[in-house]
Amino acid sequence: MKLKRGLVQVYTGRGKGKTTAAWGQAMRASGQGLKVGIVQFFKGKSSGEAKMIKKLKLDIYSFCPVHPFFGGKKEKLKKECQEGLAFAKEMLRSKKYDLIILDEINIAMRDRLIEVNGVLNLIKKKPKGVELILTGRGASKKIIEAADLVTEMREIKHPYRKGIRGRRGIEY
Amino acid sequence: MKLKRGLVQVYTGRGKGKTTAAWGQAMRASGQGLKVGIVQFFKGKSSGEAKMIKKLKLDIYSFCPVHPFFGGKKEKLKKECQEGLAFAKEMLRSKKYDLIILDEINIAMRDRLIEVNGVLNLIKKKPKGVELILTGRGASKKIIEAADLVTEMREIKHPYRKGIRGRRGIEY
Repeated sequence: MKLKRGLVQVYTGRGKGKTTAAWGQAMRASGQGLKVGIVQFFKGKSSGEAKMIKKLKLDIYSFCPVHPFFGGKKEKLKKECQEGLAFAKEMLRSKKYDLIILDEINIAMRDRLIEVNGVLNLIKKKPKGVELILTGRGASKKIIEAADLVTEMREIKHPYRKGIRGRRGIEY
Repeated sequence: MKLKRGLVQVYTGRGKGKTTAAWGQAMRASGQGLKVGIVQFFKGKSSGEAKMIKKLKLDIYSFCPVHPFFGGKKEKLKKECQEGLAFAKEMLRSKKYDLIILDEINIAMRDRLIEVNGVLNLIKKKPKGVELILTGRGASKKIIEAADLVTEMREIKHPYRKGIRGRRGIEY
């Protein structure tokens, strides 16, 4: 199966559900016979979704496993994030994928590890039949302008406020 | 693996990403070894996620395949939705599941096919180690009060506005 018209989707905001919405989308697309490729930033390989994605034979590539906030060296991460973006451009060019997810790329832009213009350029070159999903809080105005579909995950209530931190199987 | 503390999550609002966030959560939980059960309302069996979930051996049960808006008979659907709710209560009681998703149940309450009190009752009886996810726009105030985590998917931009309707692999 091929998409007639692929769009650019953005999931942003502080609320829970951005990355999971993208994975759920990956699952749905894959279930309907679309080819899915995922580039993730700032995530290790021990997440539940990464384990599942291997099982599902979706293609997943990780860059910058540690976010600067958790002690990664900025210059090194900058280089790695830029490699991630270049890799994503190659994925688009390869015409192998119907859906490409750039998980947490909004964070990489917000923290100036990659340039917004680099991502805008990638969006411009998106072939018509490819769906592109960008996740991560703090999506920039220019990215929102360039997207076709934008959802802000608004935090109405969050258990962080009750002191509940990341739980395996739920938050990662 | 077992959860120490399961919460009640709600995904509501008009934006895209509610059901996909729940499926992504199912995938993540399953990847980490949690047992996942899903009750879906108003959805057929041809969705991409339903196909994938069978592949992943997650348990999925469907009630009310046609929403009243699309011509289902209200009395019949009311009965079916109530069966779905009773079934979900049994799932909770069975202690077989670590994560239970009630997909589109907010819609079933909004359209008075099931009573809010019935769902509040189910939430009260939730065992401590079970995570419960309710999706669908129009979550009622009482449900939001009873939940631990609530995200409103706020529609910033939606391709419906451009006349793009449900695309196989992306919207279903």
